[in-house]
Amino acid sequence: MKSQFQTVALIGKYKSPQIAEPLLKLADFLAHMGLNVLVDSLTAEHIEHHSYGVLTLAEMNGKVDLAIVLGGDGTLLDVARTLAPFGIPLVGVNQGRLGFLTDISIDTMQRTISGMLRGEFVTEKRMLLSASVMREEKHMFDSLAFNDVVIHRGNNSSMLECEVRIDDEYLYNQRADGLIVTTPTGSTAYALSAGGPILHPSLDLIALVPVAPHTLSNRPIVLKSDSVLKISMHRATDARVRFDGHTHFDLNCHDQVVVSRYIEPVHLLHPVGHSYYRTLREKLLWNQTL
Amino acid sequence: MKSQFQTVALIGKYKSPQIAEPLLKLADFLAHMGLNVLVDSLTAEHIEHHSYGVLTLAEMNGKVDLAIVLGGDGTLLDVARTLAPFGIPLVGVNQGRLGFLTDISIDTMQRTISGMLRGEFVTEKRMLLSASVMREEKHMFDSLAFNDVVIHRGNNSSMLECEVRIDDEYLYNQRADGLIVTTPTGSTAYALSAGGPILHPSLDLIALVPVAPHTLSNRPIVLKSDSVLKISMHRATDARVRFDGHTHFDLNCHDQVVVSRYIEPVHLLHPVGHSYYRTLREKLLWNQTL
Amino acid sequence: MKSQFQTVALIGKYKSPQIAEPLLKLADFLAHMGLNVLVDSLTAEHIEHHSYGVLTLAEMNGKVDLAIVLGGDGTLLDVARTLAPFGIPLVGVNQGRLGFLTDISIDTMQRTISGMLRGEFVTEKRMLLSASVMREEKHMFDSLAFNDVVIHRGNNSSMLECEVRIDDEYLYNQRADGLIVTTPTGSTAYALSAGGPILHPSLDLIALVPVAPHTLSNRPIVLKSDSVLKISMHRATDARVRFDGHTHFDLNCHDQVVVSRYIEPVHLLHPVGHSYYRTLREKLLWNQTL
Amino acid sequence: MKSQFQTVALIGKYKSPQIAEPLLKLADFLAHMGLNVLVDSLTAEHIEHHSYGVLTLAEMNGKVDLAIVLGGDGTLLDVARTLAPFGIPLVGVNQGRLGFLTDISIDTMQRTISGMLRGEFVTEKRMLLSASVMREEKHMFDSLAFNDVVIHRGNNSSMLECEVRIDDEYLYNQRADGLIVTTPTGSTAYALSAGGPILHPSLDLIALVPVAPHTLSNRPIVLKSDSVLKISMHRATDARVRFDGHTHFDLNCHDQVVVSRYIEPVHLLHPVGHSYYRTLREKLLWNQTL
Repeated sequence: MKSQFQTVALIGKYKSPQIAEPLLKLADFLAHMGLNVLVDSLTAEHIEHHSYGVLTLAEMNGKVDLAIVLGGDGTLLDVARTLAPFGIPLVGVNQGRLGFLTDISIDTMQRTISGMLRGEFVTEKRMLLSASVMREEKHMFDSLAFNDVVIHRGNNSSMLECEVRIDDEYLYNQRADGLIVTTPTGSTAYALSAGGPILHPSLDLIALVPVAPHTLSNRPIVLKSDSVLKISMHRATDARVRFDGHTHFDLNCHDQVVVSRYIEPVHLLHPVGHSYYRTLREKLLWNQTL
Repeated sequence: MKSQFQTVALIGKYKSPQIAEPLLKLADFLAHMGLNVLVDSLTAEHIEHHSYGVLTLAEMNGKVDLAIVLGGDGTLLDVARTLAPFGIPLVGVNQGRLGFLTDISIDTMQRTISGMLRGEFVTEKRMLLSASVMREEKHMFDSLAFNDVVIHRGNNSSMLECEVRIDDEYLYNQRADGLIVTTPTGSTAYALSAGGPILHPSLDLIALVPVAPHTLSNRPIVLKSDSVLKISMHRATDARVRFDGHTHFDLNCHDQVVVSRYIEPVHLLHPVGHSYYRTLREKLLWNQTL
Repeated sequence: MKSQFQTVALIGKYKSPQIAEPLLKLADFLAHMGLNVLVDSLTAEHIEHHSYGVLTLAEMNGKVDLAIVLGGDGTLLDVARTLAPFGIPLVGVNQGRLGFLTDISIDTMQRTISGMLRGEFVTEKRMLLSASVMREEKHMFDSLAFNDVVIHRGNNSSMLECEVRIDDEYLYNQRADGLIVTTPTGSTAYALSAGGPILHPSLDLIALVPVAPHTLSNRPIVLKSDSVLKISMHRATDARVRFDGHTHFDLNCHDQVVVSRYIEPVHLLHPVGHSYYRTLREKLLWNQTL
Repeated sequence: MKSQFQTVALIGKYKSPQIAEPLLKLADFLAHMGLNVLVDSLTAEHIEHHSYGVLTLAEMNGKVDLAIVLGGDGTLLDVARTLAPFGIPLVGVNQGRLGFLTDISIDTMQRTISGMLRGEFVTEKRMLLSASVMREEKHMFDSLAFNDVVIHRGNNSSMLECEVRIDDEYLYNQRADGLIVTTPTGSTAYALSAGGPILHPSLDLIALVPVAPHTLSNRPIVLKSDSVLKISMHRATDARVRFDGHTHFDLNCHDQVVVSRYIEPVHLLHPVGHSYYRTLREKLLWNQTL
């Protein structure tokens, strides 16, 4: 078989020894097809006796044509943030119920993935956010986010208060539990629980979704993806900014969180026939009657 | 003075005799500046004794460089739908409180508009929707909409039920009071009351916002502007589709409403310094504390 | 067997010939237990060859100890409005999926109902609303409502506008698609789709829930059950008031809809072990994970 | 003058030296009317040179006929929790914009309060909540709440998960940012921002309002005031329970928060002509047009 992907990296859910078995099975299957198979080093810690090359996510830059993630949406989010700068396309395999991002079942992965290696796939480009925390002109923290950048009060304070500027123009002072800056990918995650709209994942957009805003007429706003958002903390006791719910940074009063679209998109590969709307209906229980 | 606009048409709020006085004042002012001033024929019915040329909106095609609307957002919506195919740029003057679209006050219009004629303006392109009602393959009705295409049950029935397909892919069966297909311009109109997000007006997007949906987990969805929406009526007793709340068509069961972006945008001219976010804050009362 | 219920009336879903068979089976079963069985006259039209007494709902006053309804929640709502003044307790049997009100399955009804006749039941009192439409001091229409009194714009007008007074004190001017006055029973019906809260059915309360209110900070309000609500139409083009979505009356400008608690509650009998919260979880899909 | 209130205690906003001047003026005015005036000990720390008796809130039990609070709603909430067990009626004076609870302006307080002392007042009974944190059958913490008991995740965890039982019957597993148990008084505070309904303050009710619930069909529920709520923490990393946003207790997994109505209500005195609905309209900006 001839595939446009010669070297494939396999990455399993972290700290999940039970992923070893299906992952090795997939590795053997791909090697048998003549592909060069590599395994993520953290994943490899859980695998005894194998003959595949091992490398870190950071080392995959330039060496890997395709990364296959076995886990859930959370695992794929984490991997995507790291691999996005390298432009490595991603495929997501889900152990349990299908996810928004991991839409291949572990039970049928061999057949599906071999089809994809023959070219039976569609590529979806999804935008990420790049965020920086500034303190008196100094970069304190930087992170990418695939889902969302969330500024949230802590448990000691009753409300956070921040000023939001879009492209240096004043938008509003937001007093709320939190403020979510979400990508289309993140629009079906936390932002949806907070009352945000669903944004089709093919769109390049940034949405601002307040959590329990004090001003009752406040509403989610959808902005151009090339907007630069500056969120300045006016009251930040105990506040924190979180990136995909994964990393975080504690905010001081006057800190500024700057958010914009990251220059590189994530390349997500789906099997032919993949339907975003079907996933939406199933995960949001729209196909069931009251 | 040399302006890129030589011929300017003035259009007043329909059936509003009181618009005659400020409109004539503006006409005289513009004529005095050396511009060729024309007056919309329906508007002219309310004006006695004037020397300006009169023509219908339809006749403005190719003859008018700029249309100035005196009224409110509703008037501008109506004019924009008619003039959009001709590519004539629009300026909106509001008699009362400033609107989202009509952002020049009648009190300061001479100064503001003379500045704009000298080039002190920004152009905003705003998308419209084009909608058709199909009945057994036959075109029954066509209309443009600047705000929204709304399918709504009537007062005899408890709920409408329709099937929505996006680009021929099944999205959902919606059972609700109504279903709003909105442009970014319409996102601060009816769709906002129904729980939809605010879409920045510079965006090319279509949002689907259900009104009182029966499925509680249903949510507004934001779609690409080049999506083609097909909404098929499954239960349509007494249902109707409305376009900007202006024109409407009564729907039968199995009728299909097809909605897509209209090929021409509206060109809306704003004075320099115009701020969409300020309008948002003022009209949604965000600048006031509880 | 000795039961506190000697005479039992059976009422089937209207215009549903297929209800005849299970209804007759239940009638024979109850007659065999020594009870006096009567059949609602409209229901009896669909039943050939039977020997049971027939009477209208109105004739049941004073003659019937228990009414058993076979159908769905809609049927029980209709019957309850008519029988409430007579104080006849009600049992609801559902043909299909269990309802909020009809919580006995047709498949197990004989066993469940014979237990209830032996005293294995709990009685729930549920409040109804009494509503009148007044036009220049004249009663134009009166109706009871078990779920809700809904004032709604028609399809010709963009919004209704009404003034609401509670116990003669001004509450607000409401501009909206509609205004729902709901009982706790109705709180899981239309009001829930419009954003209203769930009110435990044992409560005596009236809630006001606007549908797509123009004022974004407007919210549902829960009021004492002895409140008298006066809703005066300021803009009523094409508006209508509906009672349980069953009967309706077309409103003119200046008409007043007066709503208060009806003096008699509905007595709803449930089998022992009935759980309102379980019904809630099942019907609102709370027991399913995203 | 003869008043039913002989001994009046004055209580100022904590740590607010500027309250001293108006408070002393009111004290002198009341003393001049022949009343026995006492000052709260914490308030007295900010007042130099005065001749009034000083006592703690706890010492007011049995000695005080009326407590007048100068501050805002937050101050009155705090005082009410402490004085509720003693049955001392409360009057609220607001320094700034009128509050929901403090509805007398500091500018007109002498005239208003002297009218109230002559009997020109209405008494409103408002319910409080009593809450306990249990850990393996042991009482860990107890508190009253006038507004709300809020269980909320901390900033380290993405969601809390708890099981809620009402009167020992299972209601649901709630996965959310937080869960608010609110009184009618608290229904216009945090619960309103989270999407809860407004409950008329004269009602005895408990509402459960989730904050950003993971299950999109989840809704606020209004319960009888004699319900006993047991909320068991299934996932409590970093979670905390707060009482009126004032005191708090850190929760462990398996901790149980038990909430019920407190046996004594707060007696709130309003001047004649006080209108709850007017306060609602003003504070929620309902009287302003878009």
